[in-house]
Amino acid sequence: MLVRLIYASRVGAQFGEGDLATVLRQSRQHNPANGITGLLCHADGVFIQVLEGGRDAVNALYNRVVSDPRHRDVTLLAYEEVAERRFAGWTMGQVNLQRLNPGLVLKYGASAKLDPYAMSGAAIASLFDELIASGAIVCS
Amino acid sequence: MLVRLIYASRVGAQFGEGDLATVLRQSRQHNPANGITGLLCHADGVFIQVLEGGRDAVNALYNRVVSDPRHRDVTLLAYEEVAERRFAGWTMGQVNLQRLNPGLVLKYGASAKLDPYAMSGAAIASLFDELIASGAIVCS
Amino acid sequence: MLVRLIYASRVGAQFGEGDLATVLRQSRQHNPANGITGLLCHADGVFIQVLEGGRDAVNALYNRVVSDPRHRDVTLLAYEEVAERRFAGWTMGQVNLQRLNPGLVLKYGASAKLDPYAMSGAAIASLFDELIASGAIVCS
Amino acid sequence: MLVRLIYASRVGAQFGEGDLATVLRQSRQHNPANGITGLLCHADGVFIQVLEGGRDAVNALYNRVVSDPRHRDVTLLAYEEVAERRFAGWTMGQVNLQRLNPGLVLKYGASAKLDPYAMSGAAIASLFDELIASGAIVCS
Amino acid sequence: MLVRLIYASRVGAQFGEGDLATVLRQSRQHNPANGITGLLCHADGVFIQVLEGGRDAVNALYNRVVSDPRHRDVTLLAYEEVAERRFAGWTMGQVNLQRLNPGLVLKYGASAKLDPYAMSGAAIASLFDELIASGAIVCS
Amino acid sequence: MLVRLIYASRVGAQFGEGDLATVLRQSRQHNPANGITGLLCHADGVFIQVLEGGRDAVNALYNRVVSDPRHRDVTLLAYEEVAERRFAGWTMGQVNLQRLNPGLVLKYGASAKLDPYAMSGAAIASLFDELIASGAIVCS
Amino acid sequence: MLVRLIYASRVGAQFGEGDLATVLRQSRQHNPANGITGLLCHADGVFIQVLEGGRDAVNALYNRVVSDPRHRDVTLLAYEEVAERRFAGWTMGQVNLQRLNPGLVLKYGASAKLDPYAMSGAAIASLFDELIASGAIVCS
Amino acid sequence: MLVRLIYASRVGAQFGEGDLATVLRQSRQHNPANGITGLLCHADGVFIQVLEGGRDAVNALYNRVVSDPRHRDVTLLAYEEVAERRFAGWTMGQVNLQRLNPGLVLKYGASAKLDPYAMSGAAIASLFDELIASGAIVCS
Amino acid sequence: MLVRLIYASRVGAQFGEGDLATVLRQSRQHNPANGITGLLCHADGVFIQVLEGGRDAVNALYNRVVSDPRHRDVTLLAYEEVAERRFAGWTMGQVNLQRLNPGLVLKYGASAKLDPYAMSGAAIASLFDELIASGAIVCS
Amino acid sequence: MLVRLIYASRVGAQFGEGDLATVLRQSRQHNPANGITGLLCHADGVFIQVLEGGRDAVNALYNRVVSDPRHRDVTLLAYEEVAERRFAGWTMGQVNLQRLNPGLVLKYGASAKLDPYAMSGAAIASLFDELIASGAIVCS
Ligand SMILES: Cc1cc2nc3c(=O)[nH]c(=O)nc-3n(C[C@H](O)[C@H](O)[C@H](O)COP(=O)(O)O)c2cc1C
Ligand SMILES: Cc1cc2nc3c(=O)[nH]c(=O)nc-3n(C[C@H](O)[C@H](O)[C@H](O)COP(=O)(O)O)c2cc1C
Ligand SMILES: Cc1cc2nc3c(=O)[nH]c(=O)nc-3n(C[C@H](O)[C@H](O)[C@H](O)COP(=O)(O)O)c2cc1C
Ligand SMILES: Cc1cc2nc3c(=O)[nH]c(=O)nc-3n(C[C@H](O)[C@H](O)[C@H](O)COP(=O)(O)O)c2cc1C
Ligand SMILES: Cc1cc2nc3c(=O)[nH]c(=O)nc-3n(C[C@H](O)[C@H](O)[C@H](O)COP(=O)(O)O)c2cc1C
Ligand SMILES: Cc1cc2nc3c(=O)[nH]c(=O)nc-3n(C[C@H](O)[C@H](O)[C@H](O)COP(=O)(O)O)c2cc1C
Ligand SMILES: Cc1cc2nc3c(=O)[nH]c(=O)nc-3n(C[C@H](O)[C@H](O)[C@H](O)COP(=O)(O)O)c2cc1C
Ligand SMILES: Cc1cc2nc3c(=O)[nH]c(=O)nc-3n(C[C@H](O)[C@H](O)[C@H](O)COP(=O)(O)O)c2cc1C
Ligand SMILES: Cc1cc2nc3c(=O)[nH]c(=O)nc-3n(C[C@H](O)[C@H](O)[C@H](O)COP(=O)(O)O)c2cc1C
Ligand SMILES: Cc1cc2nc3c(=O)[nH]c(=O)nc-3n(C[C@H](O)[C@H](O)[C@H](O)COP(=O)(O)O)c2cc1C
Repeated sequence: MLVRLIYASRVGAQFGEGDLATVLRQSRQHNPANGITGLLCHADGVFIQVLEGGRDAVNALYNRVVSDPRHRDVTLLAYEEVAERRFAGWTMGQVNLQRLNPGLVLKYGASAKLDPYAMSGAAIASLFDELIASGAIVCS
Repeated sequence: MLVRLIYASRVGAQFGEGDLATVLRQSRQHNPANGITGLLCHADGVFIQVLEGGRDAVNALYNRVVSDPRHRDVTLLAYEEVAERRFAGWTMGQVNLQRLNPGLVLKYGASAKLDPYAMSGAAIASLFDELIASGAIVCS
Repeated sequence: MLVRLIYASRVGAQFGEGDLATVLRQSRQHNPANGITGLLCHADGVFIQVLEGGRDAVNALYNRVVSDPRHRDVTLLAYEEVAERRFAGWTMGQVNLQRLNPGLVLKYGASAKLDPYAMSGAAIASLFDELIASGAIVCS
Repeated sequence: MLVRLIYASRVGAQFGEGDLATVLRQSRQHNPANGITGLLCHADGVFIQVLEGGRDAVNALYNRVVSDPRHRDVTLLAYEEVAERRFAGWTMGQVNLQRLNPGLVLKYGASAKLDPYAMSGAAIASLFDELIASGAIVCS
Repeated sequence: MLVRLIYASRVGAQFGEGDLATVLRQSRQHNPANGITGLLCHADGVFIQVLEGGRDAVNALYNRVVSDPRHRDVTLLAYEEVAERRFAGWTMGQVNLQRLNPGLVLKYGASAKLDPYAMSGAAIASLFDELIASGAIVCS
Repeated sequence: MLVRLIYASRVGAQFGEGDLATVLRQSRQHNPANGITGLLCHADGVFIQVLEGGRDAVNALYNRVVSDPRHRDVTLLAYEEVAERRFAGWTMGQVNLQRLNPGLVLKYGASAKLDPYAMSGAAIASLFDELIASGAIVCS
Repeated sequence: MLVRLIYASRVGAQFGEGDLATVLRQSRQHNPANGITGLLCHADGVFIQVLEGGRDAVNALYNRVVSDPRHRDVTLLAYEEVAERRFAGWTMGQVNLQRLNPGLVLKYGASAKLDPYAMSGAAIASLFDELIASGAIVCS
Repeated sequence: MLVRLIYASRVGAQFGEGDLATVLRQSRQHNPANGITGLLCHADGVFIQVLEGGRDAVNALYNRVVSDPRHRDVTLLAYEEVAERRFAGWTMGQVNLQRLNPGLVLKYGASAKLDPYAMSGAAIASLFDELIASGAIVCS
Repeated sequence: MLVRLIYASRVGAQFGEGDLATVLRQSRQHNPANGITGLLCHADGVFIQVLEGGRDAVNALYNRVVSDPRHRDVTLLAYEEVAERRFAGWTMGQVNLQRLNPGLVLKYGASAKLDPYAMSGAAIASLFDELIASGAIVCS
Repeated sequence: MLVRLIYASRVGAQFGEGDLATVLRQSRQHNPANGITGLLCHADGVFIQVLEGGRDAVNALYNRVVSDPRHRDVTLLAYEEVAERRFAGWTMGQVNLQRLNPGLVLKYGASAKLDPYAMSGAAIASLFDELIASGAIVCS
């Protein structure tokens, strides 16, 4: 059973750019063996992550992520059983919204600052679909 | 929660072209900070305006607009919660129907003179969609 | 409220080609002021006319047309409230089926002779859609 | 081909209660031979009539009605080809709205005074459905 | 054209129970002449009001209500053109949520305290439907 | 924003009946203040829990539950934004499947032993709907 | 493959009541062996018959019926492959419309005289459904 | 009323190639006057014919065809009232499956030999649609 | 993953009533341990069996059944992944069509003799639904 | 009646590459005479085969395949009556997933190793559709 999970979190107090690189390196190390694929977006002090894979594997990872002290307020935005993955090609693709047109964030939210806590899961999913379509995902 | 609001009004007695410029300047000054985007159409003695943004911001603005003495008979045409904006790229785009083919107005109304008070909200929305598609919106 | 009305009639006994020109001239004189647009098709001894416009204007015209002695057996084929016109560009476009491929008439009827009295309103509407698509309408 | 036609009209200047009886008597005399059934509603200075029957018969009658000097502003509200009649049991049923709860008129219109000229065909049809359901039709 | 409008507001600083009676009396005096019907709900320091009627009448009233100093933060929750009213029987029905089962509020919101500012228009509409079904509306 | 979350877990090694009572008491103490409602089902060595409430509150609780050492293999079965709660009446209703007809478990799974890890979220949801309908929920 | 076939015909010149009995006796003799079921309706000088059964059997019978000199103008009204029969209980049920309320015929046609040649297959099918529902079929 | 009828038959014992030419010549002589259009397919000892036209004309022809001794086992495959013809351009188009790719027959049937008696009407219709799309119809 | 499988077979040459009892006894012995439920219908020299359960269990059993010499021509009629069982209450319910009204078989087939080889899977499924609804299943 | 059947199996202990060639040669010898078409996929120690054809022919073959000692755990994934084949052009096309991008397998499953036993029939069908679209099928 394949699932897709999207969550948001707020970066922890001491979180810096080096930490982001560490998280991505960890993800790319662990995920292939567990059949996990997805995207990680870091902007405006929040994370939004998409995780796809077998139901057990995604939940095992989510349970670790929930307790990771590098972020807080971990909040599910969407979760569903899916017939196929949408991000099969990314071990953990990186999205840096700061390099993007603020109009894209404005299109789905009440201000130009990305605030997933004020958005529905469906709006977040549409935003991510548009990110993919516009080639905004750093490979790997 | 994002909403889209469309209303019509009749220009006030002393309203002149200079006033239109003032309204647009005010809009473009205030709207970015409030995350408001939209269109303003002025023709045949009426305004039609589309306002998009967070529910609180759009209502705060609409409540000010309702009391603005530069127009009267302010009347809601359409209002809905939306998953995404349609006019994210315009702080307040300007539409001048007088430069347009009268056939376009005729297509959605009973005469070639624009009369939003005799039109349903859906017809107005279709007219605006066609304006966008035909590039009739002055930027900014 | 916009409506679209389609009716058929049989030409009167003394009706000649000059009369058709008169009808079209009358239509093109009166219709713009009343916000009426449409098509008139004359073939095989019958008329089929489409009238679009505000509900009051279309009915006022239809009531005059019903009593016009130049034709008889005036019969409604279709009438509906519409969100937009389909013939906004024609004050009263002219269709002369005699110059058309008889296959087109056969496609929607039991014989190659146009007989709207034996056709449903929907079939007539499809025939007209195909006329427009094939550019068979004489302008103005 | 069966059709259902609904129209509204305004009673003529000298129209009185005796005239209504005459109209109903005429209808009940002529309609059976022509396979016409329907309802006639008279209230607040307007008529609303539903006519059902074969397409030719209904149109022949409507063409006569349009020119009847006892009313004016005859205006089609709805017309459609139908698979079956809704009023097969009434040669010409009579509805007298004045005996009805004004709430029913208010439910479908902007005021408690019946004004079919300000209502869509669909709203009129719903009002008539409710009249039937509430047994408000005087037999025959 | 009939519309239904739902808005929320926060009661003003000095608002007391006597004021509620005044508002209801005003409503019941003005609304019949304007063909307005609806409900007013007052609870937990907020108002939620449904207004139904002709588009012009409802907007004229809403524009007055927006500027009424007895409340603030007037915010549209829903607005649509409707084929028929849902509250035709109430000049201005009164709903007092404080007498209701808090479970009903909890069913549609994140806590047992009614907070329309945190609810979608659709949730509010469902809550009102359930109020009507459960007979919670004080007549008139 | 209201959400409904369903998860499964396996009871920890030393978990006994007294522990279940503790969990239920904790739930009923904490949940009202956080606007949380739901059901807890304990059978065949697994838990299935439904949590409903505001998105922030449900996620805050789920993050605590994930780390609770009294169970393991905490696995999301379903999560969605909802317009209304289904279990508004239960602070934390208790379901004891052991008292139920094994046919009910068999209906939705491959054997008569409840194994949520082999079931889709939709099957679990159907099973819970049937539990409610059959009155199998111990109050409070 | 099961099919249902409905046709109409006009009774032949010398056809009398005795002939109807003969036709029904023939039908009830032959049909069981061929797995044919259905209805025969005789009124106003026309037949309408429904035949249900395996595709080969129904066609073999229809080919014989087409050449039967006791009627003429045999005309298919409807034919479809069906998942199940609607008249499995009648070897050949008899319907005598002359004993029925003429309103029923009027409901589906332009006059109170049954004329299947002026009706669509769907209207005939609806009329038959209503006959069954009203118990108008003479058994066997 | 337009109908489309599709039937299959088995060629009679003495049927030869010359007979096919005769049938086609007869068809092309009679059909235009009756407003009939269609296709005739002859392969593997069977005919499949599509007949389109007015309901009376198509049935009159089918009744003659049923008794034609040049074929037997005449069996309806499909019959429906249609809004428009699909083969308006062919007096009687000819399809010779023997010149076609056997894969096309295999696609819709259990073997590469065309056997309409083992196929549903829908499968036959799909096969004919594909024949037209692939230009397999000999003109006229 | 739950599946439902329906197949037909023809009884073997020496098959007698005692053999049916043996098959049923075997089924009721083996099925509970494998989580299999279903129905067995024996009539007119054919079997029709429904098997429900986990996908692996149902296939393991079907593979044994296919090779059982007590029947032949084992043929799948329907197979689908299902969200829930329809026959959870029967270890292997028995249906004896010989005691049933032949009209029921006729309703779904071309003759009163049950022939699953000439029926679609959907028709068989409808027949079984009707058997259940009519209480025709011998318990256990 | 055409059907499409998809099953999976695990290769037997001694199965080698030569055996695959033998299976394919057998298939291509037998299938044309039986009107069978399809695909065979061999990867990661499992087979997935699609079989299309008449219902009797496909079942006769499946019953032989089930008992073939060269594989085990033969398990139906999907089976349905179809209006047309999807693989009419392949006597038995060969798919060798080992030459494919592992991302394709990952897209439909929980790991990059093909495991049909953990996939739904629908997911397998989607995977096969994508194989065809990407030209991954070795002809014949
Ligand atoms: C925002 C964020 C995203 C993460 N994404 C992943 C991930 O995709 N895969 C992963 O294995 N760990 C991810 N982690 C790290 C896990 O929380 C956890 O630290 C890691 O899995 C533990 O690895 P370890 O067992 O090697 O210490 C993420 C952490 C954060 C803060
Ligand atoms: C037709 C019309 C459209 C307007 N649109 C906007 C707008 O989009 N944004 C805005 O801030 N003010 C708009 N205004 C002006 C407001 O009514 C109001 O005057 C202004 O927000 C007050 O600004 P101030 O606080 O700077 O005086 C509009 C006024 C009119 C008459
Ligand atoms: C077939 C037919 C179509 C007509 N169409 C129109 C029309 O589109 N507009 C119009 O004004 N009159 C139309 N007429 C003429 C009207 O029936 C009527 O004669 C005319 O409106 C009266 O004009 P008058 O008031 O100038 O005499 C049509 C007449 C016929 C016979
Ligand atoms: C409101 C109204 C409704 C009418 N309805 C009918 C009707 O249903 N049937 C009818 O024959 N005449 C009806 N008439 C009368 C016709 O307009 C016309 O006068 C009548 O058919 C002519 O009849 P006569 O030929 O006997 O003079 C109606 C008239 C009015 C004003
Ligand atoms: C919550 C609220 C609801 C109101 N509802 C109505 C109403 O339904 N109808 C109405 O006429 N006035 C209503 N009013 C009062 C209007 O705001 C306004 O005071 C009134 O229409 C003015 O009446 P006046 O012209 O008699 O002063 C409402 C006011 C408040 C604060
Ligand atoms: C199966 C299970 C279900 C639980 N459900 C809830 C619950 O609904 N509400 C709650 O507050 N705690 C629940 N808990 C307990 C929490 O995991 C956690 O122990 C508790 O919220 C912490 O409370 P405390 O802060 O008082 O120690 C549950 C624990 C388990 C094992
Ligand atoms: C209106 C009509 C309906 C008929 N229906 C049936 C029928 O349902 N079954 C049947 O066997 N014959 C029916 N027949 C008779 C056949 O046309 C034909 O005469 C009969 O099948 C030949 O029977 P025979 O072979 O015994 O002469 C019908 C005839 C008519 C005129
Ligand atoms: C397979 C087949 C198809 C036929 N198609 C037609 C046709 O489309 N039109 C037609 O008039 N006759 C067609 N016929 C011939 C008719 O059955 C019949 O012989 C002919 O209409 C009688 O013509 P006649 O009156 O000139 O003798 C067809 C015959 C066969 C065997
Ligand atoms: C029509 C038919 C239906 C059967 N149904 C079942 C069944 O539901 N369960 C079962 O275990 N065996 C069933 N069997 C028997 C199996 O084919 C097989 O003989 C049996 O499972 C082997 O049992 P054994 O291992 O005890 O010999 C059926 C056999 C036939 C002929
Ligand atoms: C994975 C697999 C796929 C097979 N596919 C087919 C097939 O498509 N057609 C076929 O005739 N035999 C196929 N076979 C072989 C049959 O199981 C069986 O051996 C063969 O039909 C018997 O042929 P024979 O009668 O010539 O011995 C397949 C076998 C295996 C293991």
